[in-house]
Amino acid sequence: MVHPFDDDTAITALDNGAHAATLTDRWGRLGGGPLGGYTLCVALAAMHHVVPQPDPLVVTAHFLRPGRLGAAEIAVDVVRIGRRTATASAVLSQTHEPIIAALATFGELSAFTGGHALFNAPPQLPSPDDCLDWRTTDERSDGVTIRDRVECRIPPAAEPSATATQPRQEFWIRLREPRTLDLRPLPLLVDAAPPAVMLLGYSGDLTLELTVHLRAHPSSQWLAARATVRHLANGLHEEDFELWDIAGTLVAQSRQLALVPAA
Amino acid sequence: MVHPFDDDTAITALDNGAHAATLTDRWGRLGGGPLGGYTLCVALAAMHHVVPQPDPLVVTAHFLRPGRLGAAEIAVDVVRIGRRTATASAVLSQTHEPIIAALATFGELSAFTGGHALFNAPPQLPSPDDCLDWRTTDERSDGVTIRDRVECRIPPAAEPSATATQPRQEFWIRLREPRTLDLRPLPLLVDAAPPAVMLLGYSGDLTLELTVHLRAHPSSQWLAARATVRHLANGLHEEDFELWDIAGTLVAQSRQLALVPAA
Repeated sequence: MVHPFDDDTAITALDNGAHAATLTDRWGRLGGGPLGGYTLCVALAAMHHVVPQPDPLVVTAHFLRPGRLGAAEIAVDVVRIGRRTATASAVLSQTHEPIIAALATFGELSAFTGGHALFNAPPQLPSPDDCLDWRTTDERSDGVTIRDRVECRIPPAAEPSATATQPRQEFWIRLREPRTLDLRPLPLLVDAAPPAVMLLGYSGDLTLELTVHLRAHPSSQWLAARATVRHLANGLHEEDFELWDIAGTLVAQSRQLALVPAA
Repeated sequence: MVHPFDDDTAITALDNGAHAATLTDRWGRLGGGPLGGYTLCVALAAMHHVVPQPDPLVVTAHFLRPGRLGAAEIAVDVVRIGRRTATASAVLSQTHEPIIAALATFGELSAFTGGHALFNAPPQLPSPDDCLDWRTTDERSDGVTIRDRVECRIPPAAEPSATATQPRQEFWIRLREPRTLDLRPLPLLVDAAPPAVMLLGYSGDLTLELTVHLRAHPSSQWLAARATVRHLANGLHEEDFELWDIAGTLVAQSRQLALVPAA
């Protein structure tokens, strides 16, 4: 059986060189409409299709307008195919309106053999069994379909509350249905939890840009996540996001520039 | 008199819709050739030319191969021009070989009026007058022309040394020749200091991708910089970079994915 993620990011090559896809209602964000990270994974699938390298190393999306359910067309350009890395660009459109513009550079992670040094540590969390499903603790999840696809579990002590003043949250995250372990869903997972800025009382945010570094192949379904906001000014803020597998390896690191509405 | 930054990032519209520029020898990086952040500023100038909004808000570059001195051509596409923001893409090429692919989203910073909250602080540095010109303390600067254009001053106590184990450095940075205060040179400045990974003994690095968030118009020539590396694995690492003006406002925040060679 095909995993919903693979079903819903499947692309079809068109005669005009572009790719067709369908944004389904299974990855709906808070506020409705397909999650930006899901839309990015669809564009990434189309870019991946035109390069020989096996791994996305870094992918960037600029979000132009909210995506909608239904048909999408992805225009892809190969910018450069080199021996070690390749770069492609994509614009995903719906009814001829551009939704996101993306760039991705691909390579083979196992071909990189340089040094190691870690000046950070994975989140220290109780076992997922001892954590709470975020959906059951957050009434805002009602009808948000991304919560049916992506499971977040938070330590009981860290339950989001109105008293939280530090916009940083650590939790477990995984696709609810187990899937082959690879890099492809990571750009969705870094965008799939409630935004950390909501700890400051905001009801949501609007992402302008998201860049994801894919750093290692995950060795586990459960990934430990850390989301942090450090600079909110004039509504603009960054959300930094880390994903670590159970072996303690950083598998993805992302940052997005997002906007919260004026109070 | 035109500032060297403006002279050297000037673009000329060509009949074919592209823009022409010249990469000069005044912004040479460690190892030779034009600095990636300088090349990005040239591409940004071309993207800025095709949108009505005054401020770049976020710009991303994927670096495909090292740039060279001399003529460059920038192919620019307007992805979307909206009321509040606009997005453009660019590929800068030399002799028909792509050097960088870029995306930029523009807007008007003063139009954003949402909330404020800061969970970080600017670097606490002695006055620039009490700091040391990095060029005079680092013999690797010889012949590196970016050092003639961009001045870095480090606190005497923080002089880079072989005993430094934490790849984090804080210092002052500015264009040596005073220039109108605006956002345009910030993508160059975030890339203009010696890479923080050199504190771990590496002789340099190769940038795969750089994303810069432009957060506020700087109120001073001197900017306080903080560069940090937290995750080096298989030679791949991120460098996070912050620029703060003397009023204590974060004016730019960047992250790059870079590679150091195998030992």
